[in-house]
Amino acid sequence: MPNWKLTLAYDGTDFHGWQVQPNLPTIQGTLAAAIHHVTEERVLPQGSGRTDTGVHALGQVASFALEARIPPGNLLRALNRALPPAIRVIKAEQAPQAFHARHSARRKTYEYRIFPRVPARREQPDRICPPFLAPFAWDCPWHVDRCRASAAAAQVVGEHDFTSFAATDPEVNEEPRSFVRRIFASTWHEENGLLVYRVTGSGFLHHMVRNLVGTFVDAGAGRIEVEAIPRILAARSRAAAGQTAPARGLFLLDVEYPDFADLEAVASEPVEEPQAAQV
Amino acid sequence: MPNWKLTLAYDGTDFHGWQVQPNLPTIQGTLAAAIHHVTEERVLPQGSGRTDTGVHALGQVASFALEARIPPGNLLRALNRALPPAIRVIKAEQAPQAFHARHSARRKTYEYRIFPRVPARREQPDRICPPFLAPFAWDCPWHVDRCRASAAAAQVVGEHDFTSFAATDPEVNEEPRSFVRRIFASTWHEENGLLVYRVTGSGFLHHMVRNLVGTFVDAGAGRIEVEAIPRILAARSRAAAGQTAPARGLFLLDVEYPDFADLEAVASEPVEEPQAAQV
Repeated sequence: MPNWKLTLAYDGTDFHGWQVQPNLPTIQGTLAAAIHHVTEERVLPQGSGRTDTGVHALGQVASFALEARIPPGNLLRALNRALPPAIRVIKAEQAPQAFHARHSARRKTYEYRIFPRVPARREQPDRICPPFLAPFAWDCPWHVDRCRASAAAAQVVGEHDFTSFAATDPEVNEEPRSFVRRIFASTWHEENGLLVYRVTGSGFLHHMVRNLVGTFVDAGAGRIEVEAIPRILAARSRAAAGQTAPARGLFLLDVEYPDFADLEAVASEPVEEPQAAQV
Repeated sequence: MPNWKLTLAYDGTDFHGWQVQPNLPTIQGTLAAAIHHVTEERVLPQGSGRTDTGVHALGQVASFALEARIPPGNLLRALNRALPPAIRVIKAEQAPQAFHARHSARRKTYEYRIFPRVPARREQPDRICPPFLAPFAWDCPWHVDRCRASAAAAQVVGEHDFTSFAATDPEVNEEPRSFVRRIFASTWHEENGLLVYRVTGSGFLHHMVRNLVGTFVDAGAGRIEVEAIPRILAARSRAAAGQTAPARGLFLLDVEYPDFADLEAVASEPVEEPQAAQV
């Protein structure tokens, strides 16, 4: 049976997250229905990880096996005709049998977008977040100093125990085996008038990116000292870190995998299991 | 009683148009509720004209009188706190008593945004409309030649009977007294990868902009001859023109008024009544 890798972009506003739920619109459920519409096969596409209600994706990855043999371009076009405009397949590829969107994932990159409502010069009136941007950015009510936010963000690079930035996941019965994650990059920049945080890591715990962003915003707004980040990590307590940033500003940007050729070579070897975090 | 002029931007996706309706979310009803929340006064703000379900605005204008005396900046901030993020007050001004958002309007400008799905070079695969753009553009399934669309659009400039481009308005009992409207500008351009139509006129009939766009797209796709536009106007029949473009691509961009000083001077003179079209 051909194994498939789909790359997806979606506007998560009107969906109850990735994971299929009875009687609620979800990305996974809507994709499964579109696959069934096109192929008449019942499969549950596996995502690289779950995304919460209101979280968006520019490069979510899903995998599943189909009996039907369809040229990739035809599957892409047929799925995009069957899917609502809020979900688009941007790439469809045949993948080795060993490819699994979650188990094979090596690195993920998330982006968080903030609309800077409060200008740096306080005598100016607040900026007004355009209604067309509101579902895709946090209309943040504080002035966030980018230098301070960047200095705070830089301190989580490396391997750390992120217990202080993890929420309990109501959809998972057991706790993660480990709260240790490796962060490869954690930076802020400005783009199109927005303040943007980008983070690449080996994996992310439940709400971890939103808790990092909320804490860096607190640092940027002067409510937390930049130097407090190592202490917050060391505390291993959610209460030590800052607020949780709202879902609407968060985008799953990219999921990195080994080359397909390497996947086939190691298919028989046991692989370390990355976490299926709901960010 | 102070008279107010508000300039509004809104994402019309989740509203049943401008005009208040029982038990349905509308822009006018939501704005009235926000005004009541802020001032405890019950007023029905008058719009420059109605917008349909799914139609957006970057510069809709509303007027109403309030008993309360509030500094404009305070009213703007308080209303934006009370309104949902999909509706923003971008300007609040005190206006002369004679100012009325509909009766005083002199010219309106609409913009229509098309996502060009089909590339000019047919051997290339179709482009995929980003999910974040889908509520704000028509993901148009035909290749639209901009030169042909522009040539067609240029032919409606001037004063014409637009019966062929008017839909019957189910919310208005009587027909417009006249189907004659003056178009000052009617052009296509490309912007940020989108194909954009912009039209300025003395006023617009029900669905007129969407019917113009649908017809120009038909001309751009080669289904209607560019030279047919004068005949379509002369036919004075809706059946003569092309399709109706979907609501989601349409934005009310700007409404022009006389200077407030001129309005005060002519307040006692009778004014010609422009139409309250639902575009």
